[in-house]
Amino acid sequence: MKEELVKKGERLDDLHRNGYMLIQDPKKFCFGLDAVLLSGFAKAGPKELVMDICSGNGVVPILMEGKTECEQFVGVEIQPDNVDMAKRSIQYNNQQDKIFMECCDLKNIDKIYNKHLFDVVTCNPPYIKAGSGAVNDTDGKAVARHEIKCDLNDVFAAAAKMLKYGGRLYMVHRANRLCDIFEYSRRHHLEPKVMRFVHAYIDKPPSMVLIEFAKDGKPHLEVLQPMIIYAAGNVYTKEVNDIFYN
Amino acid sequence: MKEELVKKGERLDDLHRNGYMLIQDPKKFCFGLDAVLLSGFAKAGPKELVMDICSGNGVVPILMEGKTECEQFVGVEIQPDNVDMAKRSIQYNNQQDKIFMECCDLKNIDKIYNKHLFDVVTCNPPYIKAGSGAVNDTDGKAVARHEIKCDLNDVFAAAAKMLKYGGRLYMVHRANRLCDIFEYSRRHHLEPKVMRFVHAYIDKPPSMVLIEFAKDGKPHLEVLQPMIIYAAGNVYTKEVNDIFYN
Repeated sequence: MKEELVKKGERLDDLHRNGYMLIQDPKKFCFGLDAVLLSGFAKAGPKELVMDICSGNGVVPILMEGKTECEQFVGVEIQPDNVDMAKRSIQYNNQQDKIFMECCDLKNIDKIYNKHLFDVVTCNPPYIKAGSGAVNDTDGKAVARHEIKCDLNDVFAAAAKMLKYGGRLYMVHRANRLCDIFEYSRRHHLEPKVMRFVHAYIDKPPSMVLIEFAKDGKPHLEVLQPMIIYAAGNVYTKEVNDIFYN
Repeated sequence: MKEELVKKGERLDDLHRNGYMLIQDPKKFCFGLDAVLLSGFAKAGPKELVMDICSGNGVVPILMEGKTECEQFVGVEIQPDNVDMAKRSIQYNNQQDKIFMECCDLKNIDKIYNKHLFDVVTCNPPYIKAGSGAVNDTDGKAVARHEIKCDLNDVFAAAAKMLKYGGRLYMVHRANRLCDIFEYSRRHHLEPKVMRFVHAYIDKPPSMVLIEFAKDGKPHLEVLQPMIIYAAGNVYTKEVNDIFYN
């Protein structure tokens, strides 16, 4: 029985995509708009191999499998309980042949996978520097939000190790970390090529930024028009509504 | 007679600010929207000392003198004919006590001015990397638009030498150079603190970016809401109209 995959205290959230559901524990880190926007921003072709790092409950590969023609995803996550939950969601959605979850510290990823094997890496990393900001009450949430187990440098180092020459990294992050992002990305020869800021409303500062990097790419950054979340009040713009539901 | 300040082949452009005019030569580089937006973005207090580098015909300090309470500006420009033209504009506007033009290569600026003397540096630098893009037909235009006499690294090096601890650099540049900008700014301990993209229309990619850097500042970038130039057709938005005329 599918329902047996959902443990006590967990809930089943509708991803509005191919009937896919996501098992989440409200006491742990639950996915947000950023993961949904990343899964819409990232591109992957039918024969490409995709690795999602800092994968958490697996929401990004689960959504991307539904949105793209790509059929080969590896999700890498350091917290075993998240990996367990992600695996059960994947089973619930019958995606076992397409998404594989790996419980591993990013820093050791090249001990498990050969270097320069992947076409695409996706990442929705912890946003907050260790030692700054209010730390969440449970360890799991803290690891998802703060750079405790890995920092930006680790993220770019891992992506650079895994990606082929010319491979793409897609990342969502906070707009106010942009200068750090560019510093570490160049350090690891991941050149930002396309960038889009995400604003709640057109007249508000952006909260998030979506960036595509190319492994060993030449310097030239295309900044896209702003992405606006809400047309008015709590009503999504057509673009964001389409990312969620179409 | 004031009119004698304008030489044959030159024209007198209205800056719509305190009755100030700017002498320009249509055969040379003429100021654009970017210089006007920079003069509106940059802040300078009454007792602050401001240096404008890559000053060209002096439009940025001439406008800023009209927009702020600041009374001490130095414009640094490498091309003697531009310096001559800027000096005549300054005389035309009776700004001689407030703006001083210096004909100097940026790389030698610390031989003329003591280091760490200035509160503010402004810069509308050449946008295009040497060796890329179509080079303008006259030398003067090429120097204004292409990194021939100075590149981004020279600009940040000069600003870092001139600014006090905590001093601010205000720059306008092309959005697609952002990663280069951040690389060189950090190299010279000029941390980006406030950034605003400039879009012709709300649904178009930004062409320009305005950035405030702090000398020895801590990493934290505030990205502002987009600046939109045109409300519709060729009609300026209220904000941009105010920068031009109010």
